[in-house]
Amino acid sequence: MDTDTQNGLQKRQKRSRRKRYVYSFGAGQADGRASLNWLLGGKGANLAEMAELGLPVPPGMTVTTEVCNYYYTYGHTYPPELSQQVRTGLRRIEKIMGRRFGHATNPLLLSVRSGARVSMPGMMDTVLNLGLNDKTVHGLIQQSGNPRFAYDCYRRFVQMYGDVVLGLKPQSKTERDPFERIIEEKKAAREIEHDTQFTAEDLQALVSAFKGLIHERSGIPFPDDPHDQLWGAVGAVFSSWNNARAVTYRRLENIPDEWGTGVTVQAMVFGNLGDDCATGVAFTRDLSTGANELNGDFLINAQGEDVVAGIRTPQQITLSASRLRAQREGCSEEERKERYPALEEQMPDCFEQLKAIAHTLEAHYSDVQDIEFTSEHGQLWMLQTRTAKRTAAAAVQVAVDMVYESLINEEQAILRVAPAQLDQLLHPILDPEAPKELIARGLPASPGAVSGEVVFSAEDAEAAAQTERQVILVRIETSPEDINGMNAAEGILTTRGGASSHAALVSRGMGKCAVVGCESLEIDYAQQTFQVRGTDLILRAGDLITLDGSTGEVFRGRVPTSAPRMESPSSKALMTWADRLRRLRVRANADTPRDAQVARSFGAEGIGLCRTEHMFFEGDRIDAVREMILADTTIGRIRALEKIVPMQKADFISILRAMEGLPVTIRLFDPPLHEFLPQTDKDLEELANKLHVPVARLHTKRNVLYELNPMLGHRGCRLGITFPEIYEAQVTAIMEAACELTRSGITVLPEIMVPLVGHKRELEILRKRIAHVCAEVIASQGATPQYSIGTMIEVPRAALRADHIAAAADFFSFGTNDLTQMTLGLSRDDSGKFLPDYVSQGIFPQDPFGSLDLDGVGELMASAVKKGRAVREGLKIGICGEHGGDPASVEFCHNIGLDYVSCSPYRVPIARLAAAHAVLKEQMANGRRPARKESAKSSGAIPGGGVNPSGFSQR
Amino acid sequence: MDTDTQNGLQKRQKRSRRKRYVYSFGAGQADGRASLNWLLGGKGANLAEMAELGLPVPPGMTVTTEVCNYYYTYGHTYPPELSQQVRTGLRRIEKIMGRRFGHATNPLLLSVRSGARVSMPGMMDTVLNLGLNDKTVHGLIQQSGNPRFAYDCYRRFVQMYGDVVLGLKPQSKTERDPFERIIEEKKAAREIEHDTQFTAEDLQALVSAFKGLIHERSGIPFPDDPHDQLWGAVGAVFSSWNNARAVTYRRLENIPDEWGTGVTVQAMVFGNLGDDCATGVAFTRDLSTGANELNGDFLINAQGEDVVAGIRTPQQITLSASRLRAQREGCSEEERKERYPALEEQMPDCFEQLKAIAHTLEAHYSDVQDIEFTSEHGQLWMLQTRTAKRTAAAAVQVAVDMVYESLINEEQAILRVAPAQLDQLLHPILDPEAPKELIARGLPASPGAVSGEVVFSAEDAEAAAQTERQVILVRIETSPEDINGMNAAEGILTTRGGASSHAALVSRGMGKCAVVGCESLEIDYAQQTFQVRGTDLILRAGDLITLDGSTGEVFRGRVPTSAPRMESPSSKALMTWADRLRRLRVRANADTPRDAQVARSFGAEGIGLCRTEHMFFEGDRIDAVREMILADTTIGRIRALEKIVPMQKADFISILRAMEGLPVTIRLFDPPLHEFLPQTDKDLEELANKLHVPVARLHTKRNVLYELNPMLGHRGCRLGITFPEIYEAQVTAIMEAACELTRSGITVLPEIMVPLVGHKRELEILRKRIAHVCAEVIASQGATPQYSIGTMIEVPRAALRADHIAAAADFFSFGTNDLTQMTLGLSRDDSGKFLPDYVSQGIFPQDPFGSLDLDGVGELMASAVKKGRAVREGLKIGICGEHGGDPASVEFCHNIGLDYVSCSPYRVPIARLAAAHAVLKEQMANGRRPARKESAKSSGAIPGGGVNPSGFSQR
Repeated sequence: MDTDTQNGLQKRQKRSRRKRYVYSFGAGQADGRASLNWLLGGKGANLAEMAELGLPVPPGMTVTTEVCNYYYTYGHTYPPELSQQVRTGLRRIEKIMGRRFGHATNPLLLSVRSGARVSMPGMMDTVLNLGLNDKTVHGLIQQSGNPRFAYDCYRRFVQMYGDVVLGLKPQSKTERDPFERIIEEKKAAREIEHDTQFTAEDLQALVSAFKGLIHERSGIPFPDDPHDQLWGAVGAVFSSWNNARAVTYRRLENIPDEWGTGVTVQAMVFGNLGDDCATGVAFTRDLSTGANELNGDFLINAQGEDVVAGIRTPQQITLSASRLRAQREGCSEEERKERYPALEEQMPDCFEQLKAIAHTLEAHYSDVQDIEFTSEHGQLWMLQTRTAKRTAAAAVQVAVDMVYESLINEEQAILRVAPAQLDQLLHPILDPEAPKELIARGLPASPGAVSGEVVFSAEDAEAAAQTERQVILVRIETSPEDINGMNAAEGILTTRGGASSHAALVSRGMGKCAVVGCESLEIDYAQQTFQVRGTDLILRAGDLITLDGSTGEVFRGRVPTSAPRMESPSSKALMTWADRLRRLRVRANADTPRDAQVARSFGAEGIGLCRTEHMFFEGDRIDAVREMILADTTIGRIRALEKIVPMQKADFISILRAMEGLPVTIRLFDPPLHEFLPQTDKDLEELANKLHVPVARLHTKRNVLYELNPMLGHRGCRLGITFPEIYEAQVTAIMEAACELTRSGITVLPEIMVPLVGHKRELEILRKRIAHVCAEVIASQGATPQYSIGTMIEVPRAALRADHIAAAADFFSFGTNDLTQMTLGLSRDDSGKFLPDYVSQGIFPQDPFGSLDLDGVGELMASAVKKGRAVREGLKIGICGEHGGDPASVEFCHNIGLDYVSCSPYRVPIARLAAAHAVLKEQMANGRRPARKESAKSSGAIPGGGVNPSGFSQR
Repeated sequence: MDTDTQNGLQKRQKRSRRKRYVYSFGAGQADGRASLNWLLGGKGANLAEMAELGLPVPPGMTVTTEVCNYYYTYGHTYPPELSQQVRTGLRRIEKIMGRRFGHATNPLLLSVRSGARVSMPGMMDTVLNLGLNDKTVHGLIQQSGNPRFAYDCYRRFVQMYGDVVLGLKPQSKTERDPFERIIEEKKAAREIEHDTQFTAEDLQALVSAFKGLIHERSGIPFPDDPHDQLWGAVGAVFSSWNNARAVTYRRLENIPDEWGTGVTVQAMVFGNLGDDCATGVAFTRDLSTGANELNGDFLINAQGEDVVAGIRTPQQITLSASRLRAQREGCSEEERKERYPALEEQMPDCFEQLKAIAHTLEAHYSDVQDIEFTSEHGQLWMLQTRTAKRTAAAAVQVAVDMVYESLINEEQAILRVAPAQLDQLLHPILDPEAPKELIARGLPASPGAVSGEVVFSAEDAEAAAQTERQVILVRIETSPEDINGMNAAEGILTTRGGASSHAALVSRGMGKCAVVGCESLEIDYAQQTFQVRGTDLILRAGDLITLDGSTGEVFRGRVPTSAPRMESPSSKALMTWADRLRRLRVRANADTPRDAQVARSFGAEGIGLCRTEHMFFEGDRIDAVREMILADTTIGRIRALEKIVPMQKADFISILRAMEGLPVTIRLFDPPLHEFLPQTDKDLEELANKLHVPVARLHTKRNVLYELNPMLGHRGCRLGITFPEIYEAQVTAIMEAACELTRSGITVLPEIMVPLVGHKRELEILRKRIAHVCAEVIASQGATPQYSIGTMIEVPRAALRADHIAAAADFFSFGTNDLTQMTLGLSRDDSGKFLPDYVSQGIFPQDPFGSLDLDGVGELMASAVKKGRAVREGLKIGICGEHGGDPASVEFCHNIGLDYVSCSPYRVPIARLAAAHAVLKEQMANGRRPARKESAKSSGAIPGGGVNPSGFSQR
């Protein structure tokens, strides 16, 4: 070792000597607490908190996330004194449990689990039943009096350890899990069907076979020393922080690599020691509706994995839920009691204990909890608690209820609902009047109503999404590997698992419609079909089905949907609080009177973008538009435009009337003219006949208008400059409409917006012409409506020169769709071929057309705001790109001082809530905390808890 | 009048009382001087300077440009004391001339001319012979003893005044000039052919007819009071500052509106008083070659207009020039003496005087002068002197000669040549070997060699340019109205006029090939043909001809051209001085070994852009490239690329060898893949046969690759990200070439450049891969060439995030073509439909693809340089867009601290000179003046004098 290395080592030793790396908990005491979740990870911190609260928690200790960072910084080594601290922690567990780790007759068994600052469900690895070897297994037999149980534990442990710690995965895509293959061979040899039929001896033989396989594949014998096992498992957990799944997940969720994971080592308790044992998951309120009712699933004589893996369909915790299920399945009360009695009736003491604990936890955390528990011979143990993920409806209901229950205040309630979640409340519902062919009924796991083609694998779903086909992913069950496919699908349908299955949790997190546990369907992956049990009906990949995620119903074919409204009293209460708080105004992008009505009903405070060209496509108008385009002279164009003016005027009257008293920003004609010509030769020929012109002339015109890069071509104000008559006609229509309404006593606030301005002079020229037309119309109509003239900021140059352009503009509106395309040099229409690679390789943190590229486009916007307002104080500035409905972008718009955001009508409530969030986050950043309770903030809960795709097969 | 107006008037009066608005000159004295050209305009300032020098200048006075500004600021009024100052000035002129303005027997006649700070030839108006009426004309008869002369002056005056001051223009496009119509009618009535055949009575009758027409058309009688005439003319000159032609000209030449024009009122002298009178234009050196020889044209018994209007072909000033002309025209010495004797022989005294004055003026101004003179009965008068516009060859020769003559220093010499002018020295010359059909010979007016279709009007030339047809504008003569058409044409051919005709001057200014005075051609505008006199050969509009502007030859059809070199000793001297001075390095954009050779011969100090995709098109390679594109798998692509690597390697060996010791920036593959597929269905079918694949597959591939906006699509480093094998193959080829050359002792400096980077992470990923390939090749080849890895800055986001991107880049190169397209949202390919409107309406000061948009794109660049160097001190930064060869852009690049510019090989000398100019301009801006003589700087001369299109029909 050279001197440098020695010095480094000494420094590290010195520094680490002062550190506590291991936090113990158990027997009503804990070194840690919930607020230390940044150091202990969510699992370890909450176990410590529960221990402190005096709740029954198996004793254990948590190795901190700092050790994880140390492990990666110093070449997979540990701080020198870690081993002493672990030994001390182990002693305490042994003392509380009265057992000894590695002891031949009274052995302590341990679980080793990961736990990051925020939940990363299923992303990292876990080892259970650690401490077993050929000696200690006899001690477990002595403790349990159950050799079969002991060998089953031993078998599970070796299998899990081989997989997780020693990396024994299938060696090729076609190879099955090697352990499962040995089990299958054993079953075949013993001519049995189920695992449960194995005898203790069978299981013992499996342990030997597993160990042999491990030795053969890895070249080293299976470690029998429990301490070696423990350090191997700890290392494996730390290593799993950087496995491919975890890295991808962190990138998707913007979790910093430096956070690291903690490792929680805990005494094992067993829910599989017999029929007086059970294990389960409980939620303190209904995660679908938000109703204040304890609920959840459990399994008798099982370990935790069995509940969440969806292999056995679990029983309900409450009697009422069990009875609802029976009603749904058409099952008699007798049958129900026989097949799936509730915990409430089967283990009433356990149920009462659980209920009390649930109440304690919810009151303590002031939020809905998602609890794991195990009952070992009637003794209830708490294995985990965390903030529960929930549907948007539940999030809103719980947040508002908890304000009424005085658990939180209004501002906390607002933060409890992630704005994007509201999308779920705005999801379409099935048209109640439409004819439907119901083919099955499952559990309503995530609301919404969707139709799509059946696909049977995540890969197929991803592939379909690339070609923009809408698909429903149909699986027996889903696993964390399926996340991308689930995201790509319109909806999820599984035939196994309950409301807490992976499929259900992830779908809710994604706000994606899902029906789970639909057991009447039989999937044949090989044939790519599913059959409706007991019928001849077989559907194939590619067939259309429709899901109703709110009822759990599955229909054949496409069922029409209709738009829902956010009209529950709790939604209204929450939005009222949000509106009171926010500074940003929220407008809608609406081109039609109908859109304008919808927007207003969703709370829009104006129209931020009314695209006039859409009006050009309606009905017969396209003929007049084409006549205008084909005219070779100004006179010809004017003649054609004169036909269009009265039609546009009628549109403007309807829209301005619908938005009475509110501003309506009307964008003048924007697209290139060739977009209005027929694309196929056949259509061109028809048009020629209709217009009585030679088809050759139309061909020529199409060729003349053809553009290599139309986005950067002859469009927007460039048309206004070269063909002044087009804008003049539009402005005439707008002002005539405004005058007419004004005369009849209706207040109208039209804002005339010029698109694609890059140079001040463009706007000066057009502004002069527009103002001239307005003055003429006003003079002739005898009414004086207020109006203003402004510009889009959508060309990068316009942002760079905002100080100059502001001199000619009454307002700015950021057109962030085009601004993003030009600033990033990225055509949205053409980026599909590489965007997935760009997101997966971390070049784009997210799709820049979905959420503003803050570093690039955002910087341009921020400086344009400053420059514009430096020249024109109080310049009104908004955004009308699609980013106006994206919560992160709304927050940014708030921070740079925009006056309003404008988004599609269905995103108005999201933007309203996001604008309120922005105020609260700003207050927090400035040191004001809206939280009433320390614990609610420090539990690491993500507000609303619903934005992470989730599963917890290995928590 | 309200109080405000009164106060304003008082203020104006008070301020203006202190001001001198009128500057007199004459009789060896002057109030003004050349350095006051900002106040007096160029004409007035130089007349004052000449008067001070004691040269024979008709006395006069100049009303300042401040009066022009006053005139526009205060509603076309004058400062109150102006009239008194004008009266005083008039007294002095009367005194010097011994005549009285408006006097019946001894009248003083005046000229009233415009004069802006820089010459705006023919843009503003002039009135001659002012002061004539029915009384004073008799005085003029008395003075001249020549009634016909007097009435001809009167006729000219009324006609000119009617046109310029009273606005009597043709009333419709089809109407001819109304005065000319009266003249034609008179000729018909009198049955005569030429104006010269009119008697004094005829002319008197014309005056009456003109006045009658004026009264009829304008409703007011012609002003007979000479003072009314004077103020009318002064007002007309000021008004002409804002006529349409002048406004357009100022915009094109970036002349501020606030400069205004002066008005010079000067005593008339007459070159048309008889055969002992003459008028002419002289140049102190040869404006075509730069030879130190007085030269020019004159006409006996003529007024100035007659020389420049090209109506009569003038005689030569020197005997040598006259003889050269005779030689060219195959004219005997006797014939020559008879038809066009030189001034030198016809008026030897006048010639000697002129020669002496020319010498005085050139020494005084230390630059070549363009002089107007008139000889009235043997008395030589100087009417104007100004810096002469000249060809590039002459500019270089004069500048270098004048250094050798100790008239100027090297730095002044450098500033004397406008970098853009060098283009002329680089113009193609006709292939000497090519067969040619000579059809005519004219005067070599502006060098170069061009071919094009014949057009007969400026409008046709402009229209042709819009469709990118190359045309030659063929005219009897040109006028200032033709400027746009001349600019649009490849070359100019006129059948009348000499080396100082409008056509010649403007063409030289534009650096456009021109042949003038080609009298053997007879143009028939109506038939749109010209006939070669004395032959049957008739060419029509649309026929191809070729001009040689260096010999004056005109050829039928297209004659192949070959590239010239800048190899004159004076060019070499000038470039050596420039190279010594400049800081910016100059590289070339070169894709082939041949281009690289040419670039080096032009002084390129490296290659700034070697586009590798061009190599993909050569010969059979396209097949391998298409095979790669059509491959559906990585393996398939790699297999195809393996065929391309050896070919590219051979290219890189040649290029790197040609640029031994100099850096070569190689840009990795950039264009979208679909550019390599055949565009027509027929070609696609052929390709399918060639590759033995179904044509349907190729159709599908083409559809898959189709992009709506390919510029913003899947290209550049995006291909590198999605198909790593493409860049890996290219880098392999580059490094294998570099290693091979290094092993054989040749120093190579490859710089590997990644295109279209927008995000730091793109460059990080690719840099890692590129460095890995380089390391592998180096390891396997046993040679260690230096190399670096950098990026284009061509996406706006890259410029905005330059600080981040710099961390992963060894160098930046601004790709200003794409940066301009994206920042301005402007597709170069598609902008043709509106760019002309944009330039003509002043939205773009110039084509942003020709000269950098400094306010927008420039701002991005400047901030990117700062950001990049803040992170990586001394980061090497260049530019490789086409702006790298534009002088204004080069200056900007110097100012923002770039290390080099890179441009097309033929623009390398321009960039070298521009870089030297940038240094000198910077020094001047910092207060250091390179000028040796005040007068050279203060004469308002544009360095080199050659960039303004010019004519002087009304100077």
